[in-house]
Amino acid sequence: MSIGGRHCLSKIFQPITIISKKSNLTRQDVTSKSQRLMLDLGFIQQASPGCFHFLPLGLKSLNKLIKIVDDEMFKICGQKVLFPGLTNDKLWKNSGRLNEPVAELFQVKDRHHQNYILSPTHEEAATDLLSSVSPISYKYFPLRLYQISSKFRDEMKPRFGLMRGREFVMKDMYTFDVDVESAKKTYEEVCESYNRVFDRIGIEYVKVLGSSGTMGGTMSHEYQFKASIGEDRILCCRNCNYSANIELCGEHNCPNCGEGSNINLQTGIEVGHTFFLGDKYSKPLGAVCSSTNCKSEVLQMGSYGLGLSRILAAAVEVLSSETEMKWPDALAPYNVIILPPKKGSKEEPQTKNVAETLYTKLEEVIPSLRGNVLLDDRTSLTIGRRFLDAKRTGYHHIVIINKKTTETPSFYELNDTAMNRQLILSEEELIDYIKQNTVF
Amino acid sequence: MSIGGRHCLSKIFQPITIISKKSNLTRQDVTSKSQRLMLDLGFIQQASPGCFHFLPLGLKSLNKLIKIVDDEMFKICGQKVLFPGLTNDKLWKNSGRLNEPVAELFQVKDRHHQNYILSPTHEEAATDLLSSVSPISYKYFPLRLYQISSKFRDEMKPRFGLMRGREFVMKDMYTFDVDVESAKKTYEEVCESYNRVFDRIGIEYVKVLGSSGTMGGTMSHEYQFKASIGEDRILCCRNCNYSANIELCGEHNCPNCGEGSNINLQTGIEVGHTFFLGDKYSKPLGAVCSSTNCKSEVLQMGSYGLGLSRILAAAVEVLSSETEMKWPDALAPYNVIILPPKKGSKEEPQTKNVAETLYTKLEEVIPSLRGNVLLDDRTSLTIGRRFLDAKRTGYHHIVIINKKTTETPSFYELNDTAMNRQLILSEEELIDYIKQNTVF
Repeated sequence: MSIGGRHCLSKIFQPITIISKKSNLTRQDVTSKSQRLMLDLGFIQQASPGCFHFLPLGLKSLNKLIKIVDDEMFKICGQKVLFPGLTNDKLWKNSGRLNEPVAELFQVKDRHHQNYILSPTHEEAATDLLSSVSPISYKYFPLRLYQISSKFRDEMKPRFGLMRGREFVMKDMYTFDVDVESAKKTYEEVCESYNRVFDRIGIEYVKVLGSSGTMGGTMSHEYQFKASIGEDRILCCRNCNYSANIELCGEHNCPNCGEGSNINLQTGIEVGHTFFLGDKYSKPLGAVCSSTNCKSEVLQMGSYGLGLSRILAAAVEVLSSETEMKWPDALAPYNVIILPPKKGSKEEPQTKNVAETLYTKLEEVIPSLRGNVLLDDRTSLTIGRRFLDAKRTGYHHIVIINKKTTETPSFYELNDTAMNRQLILSEEELIDYIKQNTVF
Repeated sequence: MSIGGRHCLSKIFQPITIISKKSNLTRQDVTSKSQRLMLDLGFIQQASPGCFHFLPLGLKSLNKLIKIVDDEMFKICGQKVLFPGLTNDKLWKNSGRLNEPVAELFQVKDRHHQNYILSPTHEEAATDLLSSVSPISYKYFPLRLYQISSKFRDEMKPRFGLMRGREFVMKDMYTFDVDVESAKKTYEEVCESYNRVFDRIGIEYVKVLGSSGTMGGTMSHEYQFKASIGEDRILCCRNCNYSANIELCGEHNCPNCGEGSNINLQTGIEVGHTFFLGDKYSKPLGAVCSSTNCKSEVLQMGSYGLGLSRILAAAVEVLSSETEMKWPDALAPYNVIILPPKKGSKEEPQTKNVAETLYTKLEEVIPSLRGNVLLDDRTSLTIGRRFLDAKRTGYHHIVIINKKTTETPSFYELNDTAMNRQLILSEEELIDYIKQNTVF
């Protein structure tokens, strides 16, 4: 990836796939635009149905999303932990979630015939952790633990690539409070933090009432990106702003407005989900605190999920055209790509090291750009070909070094693909423009 | 974790466990010093045998190690990816590794009765990825892919905590080259990069010849920390510097010196392993490149592992006393801890915000310290009690704000626990001392 400490495209493993019998899937397996683009442009590769390799560019985007989440979690005292992927099934029996067989669960036996769940979510694991050190003094609450890790779900029909996989990257958080009132405050704070995460991602979203499903609890909200491919149907009432997943309220029903409802139905991709759990897990698993008067009180819980790999795919799905991948700038693997002239061109000898110098200067003047500038050093290809590649991959700022750069005064060509705008700028103007228009 | 953007100890979930019937394990389950210290001091908690929760401080140490590894991988053009944890067992059948039953493998069936392996290592997955886009032009090599993820192994007897777990965090790298000569060069470069990783960690290590075992291939080296608890036995010949795992050479045998051998036997903890694989995986799985003359050539591979969670435990094991955990500074969860006076003490009103101001200044003057300074704001406890906690947790620099800080000129008490040294320093001297003596 690096030449002299710089990110160089020639060194990035980005297999531009022609989907064929050689690859692990056929055109029929490709069920969404984002999946096709991410496969074709070498962001991911399918390993088996619903299981994908994150290739370097795909992982870089994922890590940018993780950074945003970590950042917002820190602001609300979220503490990062890592739970094992394997959860003893006794805990799920104790919580009641294994009372009926669950087809979506991957289960595995160890050599001593003990059964484990390949966890799709960690309510039991987190609660058992608290229980193992209970009772905990009231002083330590609210307690907000989260992790980012691979989760497993044996989907009947995995589809849409990262959107509905059998192995996926999720951020899951578990909160513990001493009473219902504090737990509701926590719930509000986490929701506000999720709003900030989605604001920073920059894709339009709605927060709607959701169904608690098998998770249990008394209140739940979903974060949804609006997209025609979405598998969820959302009802919004134009009269009163009530909005909910129709699983909860039916297709025709705004509980506030009744007859006077003015209903809009849309499809969405669920990208986040929050649950107010109360004592559904803490009571059977015994997670308690000692209150001010030394009495034991059952902890009140919340559970909060962000489908990180799904958010990547959903963002690409919402923004892209059929032929060009588009990213929100905050999640693009790189924010700036620099194209030096073709090897053997008239400009080449006159622009030696110009690209490298600009690269260094951008990172120096804009520290947040560190690691986010890419040099397209594949100079055996024409500028035109490399420009098309850069545009098709969704980089927002494409800087071209050409004839104008060799003149005095010297200029760069900047293509702002988000604004669909071409600008001729001096170095100072260029750096300033990128500084103003990059989202981190 | 944060108050006003600062890392505050009162907000960190660090359950100081008294191992009891309430917790998930008994004294008999605790088989090493590092395991006991990491459990007692709230760095990890056992979820089930050989599976551990990383609590906030444990995960912070792990992330510091990951940063060192990422940094060194970038220098040798290592590209970070993420493979699925589930590997289709067909690939393992094709590589020959399932020819005999492997008791250590966790295996799981999906709802369509397809068998998957919970991967302990990803030679097959990585090779299949390359194969799915083969033949690849020779221009793209050497190719060095690595990931950091949870791995699974159904150990008969998990023990020593993170040292021999059933679920553990490993960095694994797979390299691909066009011919044997380039592959050997890659092997050397990765080994040098591993040397740098271990140099930065700062624990004494040896690199010895290893056995290729079930992995296959023609050459292998192990990185070992010397420790009495280690399960590997290493032979070193004082005459010729030959060193190897005795699995490879037997107890009495230095192949170079024969009769003249001057043998030293030691025990070690294996913390890294490198394998020169040749075409053992690439040939059956069909990973090939197209060479300069458009002929297809089977790729030459290497595989390289660092047991990250094991390195943490091994470092603690090597450095700690029975009662005090010690970290190499590069892996300590925080490098500096600041202790403001006790609530209600004479010094308290005179030192308002002194700790916070010092915290901010340290991070400003020493940017690498950002996120690595901790404020022990548990001011209901005495300085003495908090000092003992800090010492027992292994922080290298403990800064105490006391009477001397309220005087003019003003001084801080710095306890350098690594050097076992107490110093009285002005603010400028303090910052300079920490700058000179912190390892990142």
